Amino acid sequence: MRYLTAGESHGPQLTTIIEGLPAGMPIENVDINEQLARRQKGHGRGRRMQIEKDTAFISSGVRHGYTLGSPIALVVENDDWKHWTKIMGSEGLTEEEAEEIKRKITRPRPGHADLNGGIKYGHRDLRNVLERSSARETTVRVAAGAVAKKLLSLLGIEVASHVVEIGGIKANPAPYESIQQLQEVTEASPVRCFDKEVEQQMMDAIDDAKKKGDSIGGIVEVIVEGMPVGVGSYVHYDRKLDAKLAAAIVGINAFKGVEIGLGFEAAHRFGSEVHDEIAWDKEKGYYRKTNRLGGFEGGMTTGMPIVIRGVMKPIPTLYKPLKSVDIDTKEVFEASVERSDSCAVPAAAVVAEAVVAWELAAAIVDQFPSDRFDQLAEYLKAYREEVKEF
Amino acid sequence: MRYLTAGESHGPQLTTIIEGLPAGMPIENVDINEQLARRQKGHGRGRRMQIEKDTAFISSGVRHGYTLGSPIALVVENDDWKHWTKIMGSEGLTEEEAEEIKRKITRPRPGHADLNGGIKYGHRDLRNVLERSSARETTVRVAAGAVAKKLLSLLGIEVASHVVEIGGIKANPAPYESIQQLQEVTEASPVRCFDKEVEQQMMDAIDDAKKKGDSIGGIVEVIVEGMPVGVGSYVHYDRKLDAKLAAAIVGINAFKGVEIGLGFEAAHRFGSEVHDEIAWDKEKGYYRKTNRLGGFEGGMTTGMPIVIRGVMKPIPTLYKPLKSVDIDTKEVFEASVERSDSCAVPAAAVVAEAVVAWELAAAIVDQFPSDRFDQLAEYLKAYREEVKEF
Amino acid sequence: MRYLTAGESHGPQLTTIIEGLPAGMPIENVDINEQLARRQKGHGRGRRMQIEKDTAFISSGVRHGYTLGSPIALVVENDDWKHWTKIMGSEGLTEEEAEEIKRKITRPRPGHADLNGGIKYGHRDLRNVLERSSARETTVRVAAGAVAKKLLSLLGIEVASHVVEIGGIKANPAPYESIQQLQEVTEASPVRCFDKEVEQQMMDAIDDAKKKGDSIGGIVEVIVEGMPVGVGSYVHYDRKLDAKLAAAIVGINAFKGVEIGLGFEAAHRFGSEVHDEIAWDKEKGYYRKTNRLGGFEGGMTTGMPIVIRGVMKPIPTLYKPLKSVDIDTKEVFEASVERSDSCAVPAAAVVAEAVVAWELAAAIVDQFPSDRFDQLAEYLKAYREEVKEF
Amino acid sequence: MRYLTAGESHGPQLTTIIEGLPAGMPIENVDINEQLARRQKGHGRGRRMQIEKDTAFISSGVRHGYTLGSPIALVVENDDWKHWTKIMGSEGLTEEEAEEIKRKITRPRPGHADLNGGIKYGHRDLRNVLERSSARETTVRVAAGAVAKKLLSLLGIEVASHVVEIGGIKANPAPYESIQQLQEVTEASPVRCFDKEVEQQMMDAIDDAKKKGDSIGGIVEVIVEGMPVGVGSYVHYDRKLDAKLAAAIVGINAFKGVEIGLGFEAAHRFGSEVHDEIAWDKEKGYYRKTNRLGGFEGGMTTGMPIVIRGVMKPIPTLYKPLKSVDIDTKEVFEASVERSDSCAVPAAAVVAEAVVAWELAAAIVDQFPSDRFDQLAEYLKAYREEVKEF
Repeated sequence: MRYLTAGESHGPQLTTIIEGLPAGMPIENVDINEQLARRQKGHGRGRRMQIEKDTAFISSGVRHGYTLGSPIALVVENDDWKHWTKIMGSEGLTEEEAEEIKRKITRPRPGHADLNGGIKYGHRDLRNVLERSSARETTVRVAAGAVAKKLLSLLGIEVASHVVEIGGIKANPAPYESIQQLQEVTEASPVRCFDKEVEQQMMDAIDDAKKKGDSIGGIVEVIVEGMPVGVGSYVHYDRKLDAKLAAAIVGINAFKGVEIGLGFEAAHRFGSEVHDEIAWDKEKGYYRKTNRLGGFEGGMTTGMPIVIRGVMKPIPTLYKPLKSVDIDTKEVFEASVERSDSCAVPAAAVVAEAVVAWELAAAIVDQFPSDRFDQLAEYLKAYREEVKEF
Repeated sequence: MRYLTAGESHGPQLTTIIEGLPAGMPIENVDINEQLARRQKGHGRGRRMQIEKDTAFISSGVRHGYTLGSPIALVVENDDWKHWTKIMGSEGLTEEEAEEIKRKITRPRPGHADLNGGIKYGHRDLRNVLERSSARETTVRVAAGAVAKKLLSLLGIEVASHVVEIGGIKANPAPYESIQQLQEVTEASPVRCFDKEVEQQMMDAIDDAKKKGDSIGGIVEVIVEGMPVGVGSYVHYDRKLDAKLAAAIVGINAFKGVEIGLGFEAAHRFGSEVHDEIAWDKEKGYYRKTNRLGGFEGGMTTGMPIVIRGVMKPIPTLYKPLKSVDIDTKEVFEASVERSDSCAVPAAAVVAEAVVAWELAAAIVDQFPSDRFDQLAEYLKAYREEVKEF
Repeated sequence: MRYLTAGESHGPQLTTIIEGLPAGMPIENVDINEQLARRQKGHGRGRRMQIEKDTAFISSGVRHGYTLGSPIALVVENDDWKHWTKIMGSEGLTEEEAEEIKRKITRPRPGHADLNGGIKYGHRDLRNVLERSSARETTVRVAAGAVAKKLLSLLGIEVASHVVEIGGIKANPAPYESIQQLQEVTEASPVRCFDKEVEQQMMDAIDDAKKKGDSIGGIVEVIVEGMPVGVGSYVHYDRKLDAKLAAAIVGINAFKGVEIGLGFEAAHRFGSEVHDEIAWDKEKGYYRKTNRLGGFEGGMTTGMPIVIRGVMKPIPTLYKPLKSVDIDTKEVFEASVERSDSCAVPAAAVVAEAVVAWELAAAIVDQFPSDRFDQLAEYLKAYREEVKEF
Repeated sequence: MRYLTAGESHGPQLTTIIEGLPAGMPIENVDINEQLARRQKGHGRGRRMQIEKDTAFISSGVRHGYTLGSPIALVVENDDWKHWTKIMGSEGLTEEEAEEIKRKITRPRPGHADLNGGIKYGHRDLRNVLERSSARETTVRVAAGAVAKKLLSLLGIEVASHVVEIGGIKANPAPYESIQQLQEVTEASPVRCFDKEVEQQMMDAIDDAKKKGDSIGGIVEVIVEGMPVGVGSYVHYDRKLDAKLAAAIVGINAFKGVEIGLGFEAAHRFGSEVHDEIAWDKEKGYYRKTNRLGGFEGGMTTGMPIVIRGVMKPIPTLYKPLKSVDIDTKEVFEASVERSDSCAVPAAAVVAEAVVAWELAAAIVDQFPSDRFDQLAEYLKAYREEVKEF
């Protein structure tokens, strides 16, 4: 499985092509739109999120509710495109047109791709960078992830997430009873937090940052239950599934770190307090009594829940400006404000679910028979039984 | 650039083939052996590290001290192979031979690949797993990384590392004057720590863990100076260089997390305290006054030092055993001890340097002209000048 | 550079996403539409080709006539989609709807992907196969190839093609004076043949086959002038550029073979009549006096024109039917007719140009600096000069 | 599955690392050495082939006769290495040493990679090119192919080859009774020809060319029986298995073309004479009455034998020299002779088998469950049964 995404923030549409999915898997628009809607929620989002409602159009690869095995193209149109045709159109401009819309962006914002991207690609109008580097692109990553989540869910693998910290406000450990309960509670929370007590403090922190013209980041945790044992591999460094998840998380805009299971906490503990004892039971087969390693040993799944956290830095667009330099005049200025979100962590949790789901689905399709969904499901069922007997 | 590694821990040799290096780059055995020796040092290593001295043999791709452009094969022989020919030989065994060496490993160690690997590949003799999942394989990753470091160094890019935490003992921030000084000081330290005061405490912690029959992990930080601006890209999620580094770090045996720049600290700060202001100077061109983002914006290098940390869990082999289950009898047992290291963090710092160096070199070779080393060096020099004028 | 395509023959649209193009390269819709129009011409095409006029919409990656460096998405809409929404829609059907359009295709056509595709993906309605395996998909390969051709052309590399055989009618060697002349003459020919004398015979052969209810294939030759020396590599088997071209040609629907330079003729000659003598001239640098090897030695370009031929089998859809078996009833039937082309060779020449152009452009972008088009052009210019002096 | 190769013709050893093979597959040195020996046979080979007997050493990935699932490294040592340590050593030379072996190669041979390779990589000593571009490297491709052949054979898939033309002498169609008979007869033939009548003529043609100081090429055909239906895919251009085979064949040193089934013959026939009618039988399931398409439809296997031919040009090293230019002096010279083979077509047939076997094995491992060989075999058995019922 592989996918490419295309699209600028204010261009006509975002597009993704997903290649390599099994045939015969049920999927409909609603499966994708549900996830797109989840990405748009969250306390602290700016105006744009509230007006636009993203919906995806499946333009190929699915017929009458089932995948064909051929590539799936998903399109998310930009409702506001009519206001941007001149500024973002693909055709060359006449001199008059160029005159009319001549306002170039020459002021790189700290913490964005603007300056490095401009240098790399030779763009002196930094709009040419920021249109693509914008987190708007994560919309289609969520769309691709929605397809992956559907595949996982049909195989009995559930992905959830919750926000465990926002701007220094930490949630208490989440004593969820089932992953479904975790999904429900966080879905109802404006900050995707399981901990009701802390939820309000997080919202206050967001409002407070906004008032100050500042922004805050946080930490999201993705939890996956139901993964079979032995997905990924230790035999070659680039086949370790936990490493692929790490890349997926750090590859999300504004993410600066990732940890699995105990993560950085493992640096302060004795080995005897870090590893998980192995047990066996006729009913369940092998299992661990604890899950400190977050579902991975040797780059492979252990069958225990996957627990992975990522840290998102505060979004760099600020009312409270930082200094920067105009690339044309080389004059120092205070970095401009483009939008008004003060915290995007709850939305980022949905993106994190999507990219994790993608990697897991890709690994399953890679490892097990992958032409027909029914065969995959059947094979996996037999595999799970066999594993108990090992 | 790509590389594959092969080899079991007690097999005849470890091998790596490196493909895609420019031609005409100076390299000799000593460049590689130096790095292999660094990997074998460190307070807290077991007996095996002390007897064996790894050296690499360049069996192709280099002639008279220069790369040919053709694939480079590196071989690290196992000095002890003569004692393992029966147990690890590739040829089928006669019944008598099989009888003689029949001792299978059926007891999976917690925290290792043993159980999941056995299930995945159908190995009921877990030696078939642990021989490959062993950290011994990092030897050739260091060898490949040595080639990458050479390339970087010749282009004015230096990679260093230091240990910032071992078993809860944290080093103070390292006020190094130059990356060369950092390299020298840490090289002289038995725990690769820049902070002399803390160094002894780390060694004590290691000794203490050993006495208790336990093990400890820690945190290593890799620092890279001299990377040009704009390596990596924001245009597609899988081209972000920081994400590739994250995978490389988490792909090291026993690593459970990674962070870049402020990393997880970014979750507790305001945006105005996280991003780096942009400045410009006729001499230096663009630069940042701070480096909180650790050398990356938008998945690309900023030209500031790369700062990346990884956390290593305590090595799972323990004197103080954890419970596990025999896969044949299903009886509970206390996990066996295979070797006597109580802390491998200093060595892991060298491995971390190697995998980071590889990703950076690969990104440079990918982005700039890559057939001839002289052309690459010249192009990069011109690029660096051009960037100042942007 | 990489690209994915998506889309079913009667679905709403075909889509391609192209990733990895340099920034700052001029391109407009017309560059693509010109190539799409060329693909639709040719004596012997059926009705569908005549009604529909394909045009591409650039939905991302290009702004004001220049590439952004970000992925380019191209969309070719199906003008007839409104008649197919029920039959090809992505949403699940109600029982009533299913009843209404229940006509499944259960009769696999010989020479098509129908049967094998149905077995592989578990499709009992073979429309699920043929909609994607249709040569309609080559439309977006031509679109992607148009982008590649633009890049090549701007670097002084021209791609042309001509039909050298149709249904046993062979053209005489084409004594073109320049590649531009070759392009012009073949463009004006209804069968893309340079040889005016043979052209009419080819058209007659096509008409004749049509009258008989049969179909004919042929051979196309792609010629590329202006490629720099040394693109591709001998250092690893999978980096040979001629091998990549071979895959590209055989990867076109209905192509069954490929040859470079003398090709199969080389089996009947002495070595002294096959290889090209090397000469040198102060003005031109190195060159070959002949071009029997078709522009390649050791998997690399020699700087001489690339000459590559591919053979297309007759299109399998026939008025004159072949026997097959209904997959539901297992009854023998005579294969159904879906459309009325009797020869698609002239169009296939345009597809062949496109796929060859793609591989060459990708190889150039891979080998030379690839972020900015201006830098690429400048570097290539200097490289060409340098090569003369070698 | 992927593999890299390394090694220069006169370097210490050739190496390959093969990654991605299932665990638990039986394999021993003899399986590989048998294939290496086959590559060294053939009427018309030079002296070097006769003295050296290649044998492979499995240095990892196999234990006690079974694959471990970890990467397999194979080493073929150069018996003559002791005579080449100075000329081909990896270490830098002292001035004295350099003086001693100063003889650089500055005369590029027509038809070799010498000139283009020298230009590309900046090598003014063309030995730096020819040591790697030499067909000696195909030794380890045969070794990797031997592993693939073993996998196929254990799954009931047999690969054979025969020489169908040498220097204009064409074999009559081979009416073999079984693929085993084809293997046996060609193995006994000094030119790997099934047609006994023609065999002697081919040998004479080789001797004749040798006497003339010239060389001849030819055509080899690879036949594969037992492939399951539906391997490869039509859903994306780069997943077509016939296209991958085409690249593999053209990627062999000196190969200039490839065709499948009727191949170029299809250009002269009506569609009704090209496609294969589909039949069905309770016992056999679906089958074709003819096999003109050579085992492929829509980029997928049909279950019929794969029939693929490749053309090899005469080896360029000649007693009868062609003109070339010294790169230092720019003087014209007559190309030097390095060795004395006048025809390598029989050996090339073995290489062709190897590269075809590799692609097929890789496609199977990609498509079906691939961790454990027993599971793969079992799955494939069930799949074959299921296919009959479709």
